[in-house]
Amino acid sequence: MSTDTGIAAPPPSFEELADKVRKSPFHQWLGVQLVEMSADSITIEMPWREEFVSGVVQRNAHGGVLASLVDLTADFAIAARIGRGAPTIDLRVDFHRPALPGTVRATGRVIRLGRTITTAEAHLHDAEGRLVASGRAAYLLR
Amino acid sequence: MSTDTGIAAPPPSFEELADKVRKSPFHQWLGVQLVEMSADSITIEMPWREEFVSGVVQRNAHGGVLASLVDLTADFAIAARIGRGAPTIDLRVDFHRPALPGTVRATGRVIRLGRTITTAEAHLHDAEGRLVASGRAAYLLR
Amino acid sequence: MSTDTGIAAPPPSFEELADKVRKSPFHQWLGVQLVEMSADSITIEMPWREEFVSGVVQRNAHGGVLASLVDLTADFAIAARIGRGAPTIDLRVDFHRPALPGTVRATGRVIRLGRTITTAEAHLHDAEGRLVASGRAAYLLR
Amino acid sequence: MSTDTGIAAPPPSFEELADKVRKSPFHQWLGVQLVEMSADSITIEMPWREEFVSGVVQRNAHGGVLASLVDLTADFAIAARIGRGAPTIDLRVDFHRPALPGTVRATGRVIRLGRTITTAEAHLHDAEGRLVASGRAAYLLR
Repeated sequence: MSTDTGIAAPPPSFEELADKVRKSPFHQWLGVQLVEMSADSITIEMPWREEFVSGVVQRNAHGGVLASLVDLTADFAIAARIGRGAPTIDLRVDFHRPALPGTVRATGRVIRLGRTITTAEAHLHDAEGRLVASGRAAYLLR
Repeated sequence: MSTDTGIAAPPPSFEELADKVRKSPFHQWLGVQLVEMSADSITIEMPWREEFVSGVVQRNAHGGVLASLVDLTADFAIAARIGRGAPTIDLRVDFHRPALPGTVRATGRVIRLGRTITTAEAHLHDAEGRLVASGRAAYLLR
Repeated sequence: MSTDTGIAAPPPSFEELADKVRKSPFHQWLGVQLVEMSADSITIEMPWREEFVSGVVQRNAHGGVLASLVDLTADFAIAARIGRGAPTIDLRVDFHRPALPGTVRATGRVIRLGRTITTAEAHLHDAEGRLVASGRAAYLLR
Repeated sequence: MSTDTGIAAPPPSFEELADKVRKSPFHQWLGVQLVEMSADSITIEMPWREEFVSGVVQRNAHGGVLASLVDLTADFAIAARIGRGAPTIDLRVDFHRPALPGTVRATGRVIRLGRTITTAEAHLHDAEGRLVASGRAAYLLR
């Protein structure tokens, strides 16, 4: 990794990364928490809030809430590798199923860690383990 | 339009569309309001909330908040044409500049109204009129 | 799968799918060939052509050639599951590294097989096994 | 523009840009030609080739051919502003209608010219003036 990217910072500990996840005011509103961190991926959980509801008849979460979770989870997958996240250049999200009330579990993974551009992805599952959304984003390092 | 899509419903009035924008609990939290509606485009405004803040040092809005606004504005550009929005298939957002505290003004436009798939876009400007984000999404009609 | 999608067609044999890959005139020009097919993924190889070259100084493949390979590989990952591909609604491709002269190997996988919309992805590696591009697309079943 | 980006190079002449469009071997194969250039946009035409055909029954152009045209047209919209194109970070293309045999006319425009990242878009129309595809891409300046 250091040869490829010139980034030699040691990866953060679980507790350091969990702290970073909690620091953002928007993350606090979303209620997101880091729950797992491995060499390859991280997992973040988002409990339900009634303000997430998009529709009037069907009570699924708004796509913007899921898009937020894709973006931040992919970004923290990068932070798990190099100690810090990076600004999002662009974000692309596929909505696979309505996300009904319940905790959403998001798994993030780096696709390609570059010197300038890094691409990462996230997959979001509902409490029944069904894939509700997934996506990827490009991030600008340095 | 009706020849192309088979959709003959009359477009909604400004007040009908403004009501629809306000109905969603997530929209209420975002504080979004319809402010303009023409044959070609709609404009939605989003006032600032401290919970939008992404970072700790810099106080810009989280990308997920802007992505939410792109999605809902593009969706309501469709609703302005055919009387109802549609579920988002996938959303793609480019982040051009940090969106600092202040009202964000979003303009939505339909790119292509199809029978099954409709593509629409939105451009988001900050209080100084600078483009902060833009994007497009595909929506599933029927 | 059949419960979820209502599509009960048996998956094709390797030879049937390899034939389909070869039938398209554009595929013939690209020179793509099916080389592997499993329950979860397919692999397609694309040999080099001098007409792929994008630049004048550096001899990497044009992004459009790689985008073509992402699109067709993801589409054939669907065909491997349900016997036929589907029209692409939209395509998103990340370019990770220049693809220099040599065979490109593309692996495709279905992300979510839906009744109406299916999302699939592809990862492209060069002859040295480096990831040169990856992406996903939404396809319209019906 | 120069204040915003620090790029002070004068924009190229039509003939200089037209030459650049023709130089790439892949562009030569596609047959693309610059046909218009203004302060805001460029137009590129792509004549038909039988090798573009995707299907066997319907003779529409392969999505990869259209994606190639979106990418190169958006890139040359940047080159029209700053004298050179830039590597594509990621490309996203919406397919609106089948592109049947005939010249495709692509119009490119810069969405946001940044110091490091530039976003540009292209709209593709068939010989009857119908929008067949459109999309945008992020490019890495510097």
